[in-house]
Amino acid sequence: MRQAATMLTIATDRQGLIEVTDRIVGWVDDQAMRTGLLTVFCRHTSASLLIQENAAPAARRDLERYFAAIAPESPQYEHDDEGPDDMPAHLRAALTNTTLTIPLIDGELALGTWQGIYLFEHRRRPHRRTLALHLMGE
Amino acid sequence: MRQAATMLTIATDRQGLIEVTDRIVGWVDDQAMRTGLLTVFCRHTSASLLIQENAAPAARRDLERYFAAIAPESPQYEHDDEGPDDMPAHLRAALTNTTLTIPLIDGELALGTWQGIYLFEHRRRPHRRTLALHLMGE
Amino acid sequence: MRQAATMLTIATDRQGLIEVTDRIVGWVDDQAMRTGLLTVFCRHTSASLLIQENAAPAARRDLERYFAAIAPESPQYEHDDEGPDDMPAHLRAALTNTTLTIPLIDGELALGTWQGIYLFEHRRRPHRRTLALHLMGE
Repeated sequence: MRQAATMLTIATDRQGLIEVTDRIVGWVDDQAMRTGLLTVFCRHTSASLLIQENAAPAARRDLERYFAAIAPESPQYEHDDEGPDDMPAHLRAALTNTTLTIPLIDGELALGTWQGIYLFEHRRRPHRRTLALHLMGE
Repeated sequence: MRQAATMLTIATDRQGLIEVTDRIVGWVDDQAMRTGLLTVFCRHTSASLLIQENAAPAARRDLERYFAAIAPESPQYEHDDEGPDDMPAHLRAALTNTTLTIPLIDGELALGTWQGIYLFEHRRRPHRRTLALHLMGE
Repeated sequence: MRQAATMLTIATDRQGLIEVTDRIVGWVDDQAMRTGLLTVFCRHTSASLLIQENAAPAARRDLERYFAAIAPESPQYEHDDEGPDDMPAHLRAALTNTTLTIPLIDGELALGTWQGIYLFEHRRRPHRRTLALHLMGE
């Protein structure tokens, strides 16, 4: 049994879902393990992770609109140090995921056919986001 | 340290919470480990996972009604390829969990007394759902 | 590769976010591992876990108000065995996390600069909450 870890940097330039499946699968493949457990950890509180539908761009747009509606920009927040998109970003991150674990079985991540891994950027301005990847197995 | 993995198939015939604790605990027991980490991974984007109250059926019904109300069927979604319950299914999955990790300590999953593991089916029509189970430990 | 596990008890006396980062980091440090995977598992269905902003108390207050508003106390719930804060507690737990996994890399948890680990207490009355901690690595 062994472990591998790395940091993945993602440049974002808008709010929304950015697919990172290929970059993550590529790194996992490079580790040449057959069975194990992958953890993807988002090191931010205003961006998050989501496993969602990878085939329909319309579903992604509906997801983005839904989280914008359920945790809207509003003058009612006490915390607005970084502008009107600051607190909604924390709320949308709290409603989705900071961390995901995905089994590796027979040399492949257990993702279903229609599942993609997405970084969910909640801030309007460009950011550099870091995902910690950790794989344990053999 | 060793690993075990399997696929668990669940037939669903309605929207709602379906308890899968016994099937998962049964498989974990069969692996005869004392300490480890269990991962339950739902290979779908229109069904999800939830650890919730296992004693009160009324709590489960309230949970089902709540997610139906907070992510309702509506003509406003752009993505409706598979009908009016298509996009709400993705939203309810995004608000709950695709993956759960549960420690195994002293031969038992660390679930509290009132915690059950549920598959949350978000589609109206019958589906066959697959959960990937992965256990690592000794 | 080895494993360590413990139970952490947190006394709560009000609804809201209680930071537990220091207690968790302290236990992880005591295990003297360089690389590994930490799991924090909340053994309750009316309290939950959240990784969020650790610098701004106003952000924590906004988070608490948001979850109070999105899953409010209401006479409409069928399940109210333990009072009006019973069912909203389950809903707020379902919207956040029962379990978190955090990689340990180069001797440190992969938490970002502004990330803290919080127990989210959803009941009004004092409770003793138990978190199961599990670390696997070397």
